[in-house]
Amino acid sequence: MRIGIIGGGAIGLLLAAYLSPYFEVTVYTRRQEQADRLNEQQLRLCKQGREQRIRVRAALFGAEKVQADVLFITVKQYHLSDVLSQLTNVPSTTTLLFLQNGMNHLRLLSQWKERNIVLGVVEHGALKHDDCTVEHTGIGKMTLSLFQGTLGQAEKLLDGKIPYFPIEYTDDWQTMLTDKLVVNAVINPLTTILRIQNGELIRIQEYTEMMKQLFAEVCDSLALSNRESAWHRIVAICEKTAANRSSMLSDIEHRRKTEVEAILGYVLEEGKKRGVATSLCQFLFYAVKGMEKHG
Amino acid sequence: MRIGIIGGGAIGLLLAAYLSPYFEVTVYTRRQEQADRLNEQQLRLCKQGREQRIRVRAALFGAEKVQADVLFITVKQYHLSDVLSQLTNVPSTTTLLFLQNGMNHLRLLSQWKERNIVLGVVEHGALKHDDCTVEHTGIGKMTLSLFQGTLGQAEKLLDGKIPYFPIEYTDDWQTMLTDKLVVNAVINPLTTILRIQNGELIRIQEYTEMMKQLFAEVCDSLALSNRESAWHRIVAICEKTAANRSSMLSDIEHRRKTEVEAILGYVLEEGKKRGVATSLCQFLFYAVKGMEKHG
Repeated sequence: MRIGIIGGGAIGLLLAAYLSPYFEVTVYTRRQEQADRLNEQQLRLCKQGREQRIRVRAALFGAEKVQADVLFITVKQYHLSDVLSQLTNVPSTTTLLFLQNGMNHLRLLSQWKERNIVLGVVEHGALKHDDCTVEHTGIGKMTLSLFQGTLGQAEKLLDGKIPYFPIEYTDDWQTMLTDKLVVNAVINPLTTILRIQNGELIRIQEYTEMMKQLFAEVCDSLALSNRESAWHRIVAICEKTAANRSSMLSDIEHRRKTEVEAILGYVLEEGKKRGVATSLCQFLFYAVKGMEKHG
Repeated sequence: MRIGIIGGGAIGLLLAAYLSPYFEVTVYTRRQEQADRLNEQQLRLCKQGREQRIRVRAALFGAEKVQADVLFITVKQYHLSDVLSQLTNVPSTTTLLFLQNGMNHLRLLSQWKERNIVLGVVEHGALKHDDCTVEHTGIGKMTLSLFQGTLGQAEKLLDGKIPYFPIEYTDDWQTMLTDKLVVNAVINPLTTILRIQNGELIRIQEYTEMMKQLFAEVCDSLALSNRESAWHRIVAICEKTAANRSSMLSDIEHRRKTEVEAILGYVLEEGKKRGVATSLCQFLFYAVKGMEKHG
């Protein structure tokens, strides 16, 4: 099976590292330089202090026709519309597999009615060190869910044969994405404005109180039904990733654009629709947008 | 006139520097070491790049009988009850002059019915560099207001003869303290959690939006009447002190306890009394308390 991966970020490289031994993988990058380096130097996967070199094929995105049975789109939500506009020539048999945070991107998919579309959520810790090095900082799982059409060859991903990289399936993509969104909407902005590792949110009682306040507002905005299990999931993730810096904090520290629009921006829109007060979400949205400018 | 100043922090030292040439000043310190250093090395006042040495008398607070016509109490609000318990022997003719932030301390003064009590607000920028060095980073003013009894000899402070250190009088201590509280409740917590200089609050549009949100909540909690002028005052202070770090941020950076209880704590209590929603104030209160622990 031919797998394409659009995006050479942490998740794109992690996928490439774990899928390459089993499938024919091509990574499509935004910069020619990264494609060249991956082709010449191979991909380095660091895990638990050990390093592994993996041969992958890479190409500049847009420079050649994308030919894949399953095509992962791993770019950030704010790059998605650019990427989609270049995917019109992809064969209709290709399964498109979207791994974005938040739920804003679902609107963009409405123009792709005839396509096989799968949504996915990645719960691994991954840190990109350079163009061809990714560190697997936390072993989690990837969950996939059919959005429209059929799974197509993506079915072959689900046989659970890849060590340290379990891939699960759920029928309910709505719950899958919402669960991830709630976690991101609480952990990401708080760790970012406080500039703390995830574990501090449960170590310092006052920070846990802030989490509770924000969590309540996010739940109201999204009209979340099972709040107790959502809260336990957040706490469990803070425990499991205690020493990690959230992706949003990491983006701010590296002066990159964050995904705050896809995460809190979506929560704000949903809150508005439902007439729910969202002063904390709004406040934190401004804080993160300001930090993007201020550095 | 004999002036006593309890507290050798930035404000205590600033007062000592400006009042010593005109009055007989004694600074009462918490540590013997600071009193010794002030007596031996004199007080250094830095202003606009120049340094001035000023002879002051200093003594350990509690080691000798306080003899003063006007006694400034400049300690933080959270040290006030300790200090008050040691002031019972002070002569009844002494005017007690309190310079604390917030308004929580007014409750403590109810036990001092027979005393002459003046409240004051200091709007100078002052930075303590070491036990005997204070920098005057922004020239503002000190405003005094009679709380109970008579001004006594504090009247002599009001003749405006001290260059760079104007002292004004107002009849309305309630408005005086509330105005200062609103400024502190907005600028201090925001600059602290964002770890920014005061000027950034008006330079970065998203931070100004956060200020507006918080300001609205603080106004509701305190049932503030003239909001427009209060807002203009905040903006003017951000402009005037653009390069300064707020006292709360400075406290966090030096791992000191902050005055968040006297400031946001008071706003929260007032909001509760009035049945006003105070989710942002609560959120920021937790943030600052957490930062005190976390550093």
